[in-house]
Amino acid sequence: MPVNLTPPDRERLFPVAGIELGWAEAGIRKADRKDLLVIRVADGSTVAGVFTRNRFCAAPVLVCREHLAGGDGIRALVVNTGNANAGTGAEGLAAARATCDRLATLLGCKSGQVLPFSTGVIMEPLPVDRLVAGLPLAIDRLRPGHWLEAAQAIMTTDTLPKAASRRVEVGGRTVTVTGIAKGAGMIRPNMATMLAFVATDAAIAPGLLPHLTRTAADRSFNRITIDGDTSTNDSFIVIATGGSGAARIESVGDPSYAIVAVAIEAVARELAHAIVRDGEGATKFIEVRVEQARTEAEAARIAYSVAHSPLVKTAFFASDPNLGRILAAVGYAGVDDLDPARVQMYLDDVWVVRDGGRHPGYREEDGQRVMKASEIVIRLQLGRGPEATSVWTTDLSHDYVSINADYRS
Amino acid sequence: MPVNLTPPDRERLFPVAGIELGWAEAGIRKADRKDLLVIRVADGSTVAGVFTRNRFCAAPVLVCREHLAGGDGIRALVVNTGNANAGTGAEGLAAARATCDRLATLLGCKSGQVLPFSTGVIMEPLPVDRLVAGLPLAIDRLRPGHWLEAAQAIMTTDTLPKAASRRVEVGGRTVTVTGIAKGAGMIRPNMATMLAFVATDAAIAPGLLPHLTRTAADRSFNRITIDGDTSTNDSFIVIATGGSGAARIESVGDPSYAIVAVAIEAVARELAHAIVRDGEGATKFIEVRVEQARTEAEAARIAYSVAHSPLVKTAFFASDPNLGRILAAVGYAGVDDLDPARVQMYLDDVWVVRDGGRHPGYREEDGQRVMKASEIVIRLQLGRGPEATSVWTTDLSHDYVSINADYRS
Repeated sequence: MPVNLTPPDRERLFPVAGIELGWAEAGIRKADRKDLLVIRVADGSTVAGVFTRNRFCAAPVLVCREHLAGGDGIRALVVNTGNANAGTGAEGLAAARATCDRLATLLGCKSGQVLPFSTGVIMEPLPVDRLVAGLPLAIDRLRPGHWLEAAQAIMTTDTLPKAASRRVEVGGRTVTVTGIAKGAGMIRPNMATMLAFVATDAAIAPGLLPHLTRTAADRSFNRITIDGDTSTNDSFIVIATGGSGAARIESVGDPSYAIVAVAIEAVARELAHAIVRDGEGATKFIEVRVEQARTEAEAARIAYSVAHSPLVKTAFFASDPNLGRILAAVGYAGVDDLDPARVQMYLDDVWVVRDGGRHPGYREEDGQRVMKASEIVIRLQLGRGPEATSVWTTDLSHDYVSINADYRS
Repeated sequence: MPVNLTPPDRERLFPVAGIELGWAEAGIRKADRKDLLVIRVADGSTVAGVFTRNRFCAAPVLVCREHLAGGDGIRALVVNTGNANAGTGAEGLAAARATCDRLATLLGCKSGQVLPFSTGVIMEPLPVDRLVAGLPLAIDRLRPGHWLEAAQAIMTTDTLPKAASRRVEVGGRTVTVTGIAKGAGMIRPNMATMLAFVATDAAIAPGLLPHLTRTAADRSFNRITIDGDTSTNDSFIVIATGGSGAARIESVGDPSYAIVAVAIEAVARELAHAIVRDGEGATKFIEVRVEQARTEAEAARIAYSVAHSPLVKTAFFASDPNLGRILAAVGYAGVDDLDPARVQMYLDDVWVVRDGGRHPGYREEDGQRVMKASEIVIRLQLGRGPEATSVWTTDLSHDYVSINADYRS
């Protein structure tokens, strides 16, 4: 059961000039489900991406990096679910290239102008014949208004499609940002999430878009975790088509940069939160906020330590204010000179820990009240400096175990 | 259900000359259960300990460090379950000291000669009045033959008591090593486990025992994990009474050193494995063996990454050879220059991954066969160097969630 997440409203997903989307039921792993997505990108668009740092990164991730570096410009993206094409060696690489070759032929562009993406089971051969057989139907369905279907086509264990959209004014022109994402397990993105695609019809200089993309990832997908498992396939792509007619943004100093960057970040964060809300077995949406840290990295380290603790996560599942488990996770996060006597902890509005020990005024029933909510903020103050960050996560429930014990069956 | 673990056989737990053990039902958290243990140590014994590196270490850990450094010699240990006396600030420290004071008075020694230990819920005040009220009965029961009762008295979510014993010949004398341990959750010891006490009647020089203790911990308790949660109370104590009459061991070069050290390590490892076998919700006992690493630290980092992955652990619970999840965990372990193309993986005798991809001869039914066993070795070869290590862990089951969602109720 997703936590306070509803299906995207089709009317609120604004088309992006220069982007068309089409899907097919290619039977990659199961019959009769949307499992193939093609995104056609207008000529002259700029595209940037960030990818998993997992050393066992998937074949399509290797090909994406190569094609983005190629400098030919990107004209299409192709995404399959049901198979991650990871841990598949040279054969997997050949399968990803064959996919690009075929789509390029069908669309009349170069193979190096196609970005491939896969998600699903690791270490199984990609059924490339079924995949390419599905391409003509997907191409036939290419339309600017197909964002919702596109979000559906990339789902795996997701229970709901994830999409978000914003409109902003840039120099008298309306600029649209719309994006989709998928992911519910194997979520602890490191530089990106499972799969997320955000497009805008703003024009953004090629040299600038990678910076914007990385910053948006760092403030959204790189701050969520469900199970601490960094996927082999994490990819986050930003496409700027220029189709809005607004003047091209050339530098960070350009006044339009902040407007568009904030809109892209807002879409990325909404998608990242949607992934957490739909986290496998999630019953709660938890923000771990660490303040007064010496560095942001230190704040993140402690926040992840709390967010990954199975004991903390099961306590939240049980709505049991067994809050000492949070202190234990702070203590083993590896910040060796942390002074426990300076640590404060709040659960929403309840002051639980004062100067490293239980607050004398803390009453169990106050903790209990907060723990029963479906959205909870754990706020930790370290008394060490000015830096802060937040990590978003879920609880750990019986359903998480069931989903992952059954995933391949 | 513990994995291939049976209750210790009382007849095989040899008394250690110079050690007496007694217990009481002090009602620390629940009535009518053994929750208080006193261990009396003969005058002239040497004692060493290693403790948690959790920054939120418990009050008794702070007092133990102080008393061990005091140089007065240790004459008694006192252990309570039901309350960890951690996250309890200055009051908790006063409670630990009061416990030592009272026991010292009853036994006729100094307060600084008592080591206190606590385990149980974090961030609750220690009911020191009930604890000290139980001391006279525990003292009354002090006997050399009470090792099994002592193992029972320190249990929390453990389903079975954990004890082990060895006898070796040293210079014509029989030397005994006997130990007990507790722990089933919040297990990822960092320098020691939850609580483990090992005693020998060998005589070991005070300057030598800390080295022996640390080495034994590194090869046993410091290589197990159940949930990755390093406790606030981890403590591992080695006591050498000299009661065997064997000549005192003065240096690592002494031929007797290796004999006694190996016996102590064997007892420590048996206890560490017993903790994993009795891990919360465990249905499988898994060794993650990493070979051909550049350093032992690198091997351990990858082994822990696999051993902590909820996705790997749930796959083992389901006996589902979803083995790509293991590769993913290897890939995100943070060894940045790892070359996937050099990685081999075996599941017991089955060669699953060859040169970073699925072995062409690997058949799902072979993986399935191995996954059904209750004891499984995951062997990873990195092709980077000569170092190796093993980490022992369990699967992640519904019972783990149930136990930890209900622990305080």
